[in-house]
Amino acid sequence: MASKVRLYVDHPLTKGQTVSLNKEQAHYLFGVMRLTEGTVLSLFNGSDGEWDAEVVSAGKRAGELVCADQTKPLQLPPDIWLVFAPIKKDRTDFIVEKATELGAARIVPMQTEFTNSGRINQERLQAHALEAAEQCGGTYVPEVADLVKFTRLIDDWDHSRQIMFCDESLVGAAEALGDVKGGPWAIFIGPEGGFSDAERARLNGMDCARAVSLGPRILRADTAAVAALTVWQQQLGDWE
Amino acid sequence: MASKVRLYVDHPLTKGQTVSLNKEQAHYLFGVMRLTEGTVLSLFNGSDGEWDAEVVSAGKRAGELVCADQTKPLQLPPDIWLVFAPIKKDRTDFIVEKATELGAARIVPMQTEFTNSGRINQERLQAHALEAAEQCGGTYVPEVADLVKFTRLIDDWDHSRQIMFCDESLVGAAEALGDVKGGPWAIFIGPEGGFSDAERARLNGMDCARAVSLGPRILRADTAAVAALTVWQQQLGDWE
Repeated sequence: MASKVRLYVDHPLTKGQTVSLNKEQAHYLFGVMRLTEGTVLSLFNGSDGEWDAEVVSAGKRAGELVCADQTKPLQLPPDIWLVFAPIKKDRTDFIVEKATELGAARIVPMQTEFTNSGRINQERLQAHALEAAEQCGGTYVPEVADLVKFTRLIDDWDHSRQIMFCDESLVGAAEALGDVKGGPWAIFIGPEGGFSDAERARLNGMDCARAVSLGPRILRADTAAVAALTVWQQQLGDWE
Repeated sequence: MASKVRLYVDHPLTKGQTVSLNKEQAHYLFGVMRLTEGTVLSLFNGSDGEWDAEVVSAGKRAGELVCADQTKPLQLPPDIWLVFAPIKKDRTDFIVEKATELGAARIVPMQTEFTNSGRINQERLQAHALEAAEQCGGTYVPEVADLVKFTRLIDDWDHSRQIMFCDESLVGAAEALGDVKGGPWAIFIGPEGGFSDAERARLNGMDCARAVSLGPRILRADTAAVAALTVWQQQLGDWE
């Protein structure tokens, strides 16, 4: 009996591998999704692709699965980071979900001068990325980094990673990604209110950074994140 | 005294024009936003651009504004419709908000074979589009149409409007918009679960329809809507 359930597990996956479930996983599979012994579901762990696995023991607080065949190889996203200034809770969750779906390799919350929130719940956001991967059929889960200050991030920046920096002040002005090269990239999305003048000057002074416009209308930060990832994936990523 | 408040009004706007406020508008401006007589705010009506207007009378249930100068001309979006199958309430609201920000000219909720909800609250969605325009600095509000059945929509389709149809079954296969022409367009986004085989066959049989892929990952319907609008605006719209 096959189910459509997909589950992320922090466990190696190979043919015949037994996977023990923790309390939360057992509750989800047997309490919420009502799976029973004999049911086949999909497992992935972010590194071994996707596997069919059969329920061999289903308890209230524990359970065991056994891996059968691999159903998908690991599909790594291109080396693109999404660096963004967290906004309201809902919209921050949304950005993490959408970045996972659109194939960001790493998600970096950044505290800028105009960022309202001085802290994030990194664990909750990481769980959100994981759930998004479960739901969208992904085999990879982007790491959600801890909140980092803009100045610290730029001080430590590896200049071999190019920056596509979405500049609200460019609204209406035309600058596309143009003839840029592949390789590691990061998209920077500012908070509502944009980057400060000092931050903008700092970015504009970096050889590896390039300001781009996302059209003639002002976009909310969450819309800008999705639009920027789409533009990047289409021009430099794996949308072909 | 200037405020950052933007308000949509269903009223002609010209220099010196008096605009009377209804109860909801008066409550919003004077009760919620605490504007007082003498404050200047921005008005738009979807056809006359954006105007500075001064509060000349502020009451609990009514009020009057007088238009001063035009601050933005009307900025019409390109002739692109977003036709989508409504999903859960939150995500449907989100699609309408994002479509407004990204410059859709018209938003058409469509009932497909696999669409769960058989009805929408058209007025609520229209109000949502209006609020999105207020917040993103737009001067145009897209019309949100009433829910229409897929078969009816296609039976009555004006074939001079091309269709960019996002086909989940193309995930991984490469087809971009390519060398297509401008003119009126519509983006079709299916429900979770995609279009049915019959619907897909119907669309594929239309000369004016073109199936496109949105990359190698499966996107949720709301993500697909934003990504598709971004792709279209960048290739055929007003992002230059």
